[in-house]
Amino acid sequence: MKLRPLADRVIIKAVPSEERTKSGIIMPDTAKEKPQEGEIIAVGPGRIEKGERIAVDVQVGDKVIYSKYAGTEVKFDGEEYLILRESDIQAVIG
Amino acid sequence: MKLRPLADRVIIKAVPSEERTKSGIIMPDTAKEKPQEGEIIAVGPGRIEKGERIAVDVQVGDKVIYSKYAGTEVKFDGEEYLILRESDIQAVIG
Amino acid sequence: MKLRPLADRVIIKAVPSEERTKSGIIMPDTAKEKPQEGEIIAVGPGRIEKGERIAVDVQVGDKVIYSKYAGTEVKFDGEEYLILRESDIQAVIG
Amino acid sequence: MKLRPLADRVIIKAVPSEERTKSGIIMPDTAKEKPQEGEIIAVGPGRIEKGERIAVDVQVGDKVIYSKYAGTEVKFDGEEYLILRESDIQAVIG
Amino acid sequence: MKLRPLADRVIIKAVPSEERTKSGIIMPDTAKEKPQEGEIIAVGPGRIEKGERIAVDVQVGDKVIYSKYAGTEVKFDGEEYLILRESDIQAVIG
Amino acid sequence: MKLRPLADRVIIKAVPSEERTKSGIIMPDTAKEKPQEGEIIAVGPGRIEKGERIAVDVQVGDKVIYSKYAGTEVKFDGEEYLILRESDIQAVIG
Amino acid sequence: MKLRPLADRVIIKAVPSEERTKSGIIMPDTAKEKPQEGEIIAVGPGRIEKGERIAVDVQVGDKVIYSKYAGTEVKFDGEEYLILRESDIQAVIG
Repeated sequence: MKLRPLADRVIIKAVPSEERTKSGIIMPDTAKEKPQEGEIIAVGPGRIEKGERIAVDVQVGDKVIYSKYAGTEVKFDGEEYLILRESDIQAVIG
Repeated sequence: MKLRPLADRVIIKAVPSEERTKSGIIMPDTAKEKPQEGEIIAVGPGRIEKGERIAVDVQVGDKVIYSKYAGTEVKFDGEEYLILRESDIQAVIG
Repeated sequence: MKLRPLADRVIIKAVPSEERTKSGIIMPDTAKEKPQEGEIIAVGPGRIEKGERIAVDVQVGDKVIYSKYAGTEVKFDGEEYLILRESDIQAVIG
Repeated sequence: MKLRPLADRVIIKAVPSEERTKSGIIMPDTAKEKPQEGEIIAVGPGRIEKGERIAVDVQVGDKVIYSKYAGTEVKFDGEEYLILRESDIQAVIG
Repeated sequence: MKLRPLADRVIIKAVPSEERTKSGIIMPDTAKEKPQEGEIIAVGPGRIEKGERIAVDVQVGDKVIYSKYAGTEVKFDGEEYLILRESDIQAVIG
Repeated sequence: MKLRPLADRVIIKAVPSEERTKSGIIMPDTAKEKPQEGEIIAVGPGRIEKGERIAVDVQVGDKVIYSKYAGTEVKFDGEEYLILRESDIQAVIG
Repeated sequence: MKLRPLADRVIIKAVPSEERTKSGIIMPDTAKEKPQEGEIIAVGPGRIEKGERIAVDVQVGDKVIYSKYAGTEVKFDGEEYLILRESDIQAVIG
């Protein structure tokens, strides 16, 4: 991956909806926050709080649930990614 | 459970209204905040404050009262769950 | 009591208005914040601030004045209760 | 006094406007914040900040200037009082 | 002065516009914030931050520039004063 | 200079637009924030954070870029100045 | 570079869209936040938090992705630059 996220940001590749049934997780269309499933591609060094760096609590390869309306979209080598803050990740799958 | 919540989040399975009378707790329809009853299915490691992790004050299996309008809904193996922050939990039943 | 409030929350049983004259406290109807009188039924362990737990400054049995528009209503064994944060309590009576 | 204010709250008895000329302080009707004069009747133990209790900087008996639109009114033994936070007190008279 | 300001408040006597030319400072009528010139009459003990009292950085007798729309007006012995927070003072003249 | 700015404030003399070409810096009229160029005339002692004073990171004589809509205008000895907080200064020129 | 950014600000030269394909990063026009690519030209000394300076996590020469709507535009020696806070930088490329 050529992108290094800053602070507590991570880079996520969204899992297409047709592949989502594998994980057994379904995001209901009627959900209030439109969660989505994705895979962590890169992880920032963590944010600094009171002079100490707080490591990010997910790893490259983790499948995660995140809010659809969070983050910044970028396209790289023909694929779309999302740059998110760790706090926008709800849970790790599996 | 295949979902690991991050930080101070918990995963809750709502108790259907027809089973709620068992616990003796009734959420009045006229209540201002529409509280609901649910069971804790998974608990995050706690949020970090000033470099120290603060453990979540509920456990898997706890029946809790939480606000209806909080959290993110996900569906997994045919069942609906809610990902909530600990601060959205009002009280533990029993 | 079957409800254990979390953090700095307390559970309150409102004192019906016909019993309020005993305490000598009257909440004027014209008051800006509509204070109410109630009795503390259960007390949470206190919130955590900078890694230290801050004990709640009221006890079970205390009669208190609180704001009418604060908190979450629940019904339990046929009686209504209110789950409040300690900061919504104005004063202890007596 | 039968009321014990919590945290950094104080209980104040307003000085009627006909007695205010004694102190020499006049609150202009055209003032932007409508300050008022009152006497401190009870003082809370102080709020907790970073684990330490900060004592309230007024005493029972102090005459103070406070903002008219702050606080919660209660009536007790036929007299009206105001429950205020210390930060709503502007100055001590005398 | 019979007024003791609390925390980081000060009491100011506004300098009438006809006397302002002495100091050489002119507040343009078209200014965005309508600054005013006044003299410090009384100084509070300072606010408490992280358990330590922070002394106020002006003294009785200082001529200061402050924002016109800040503070609480009081009248005392026939003169009008303003109770301000230190943070509403922009600069000391002279 | 007869004005002593408080806390993290500085006093700035705006550089007239006809002299700005000298520095080589041009503020585009279409810019979103309307930056301006000015010279630091006086510097406050710095704000206090957690009991320690944080020195201001500019000096008297520095040419700086600041936001046009920040600060308080004053006129002194026939010249207009601006009282700004340090955080409204974007960069030092030169 | 004649501009020294203050605190946690950086100065960025935007990469024109026709040169962006080199890096392989494409910002989709339909993106919610309109990210852009640029090169770091100057870096501030870092902001101060709790009395300690936090170094900025990018270096001069870094290619970065940042939000289009952040920052202050300046023109210098015929070229346009952007003064940004570090927190407006999403990721470093390469």
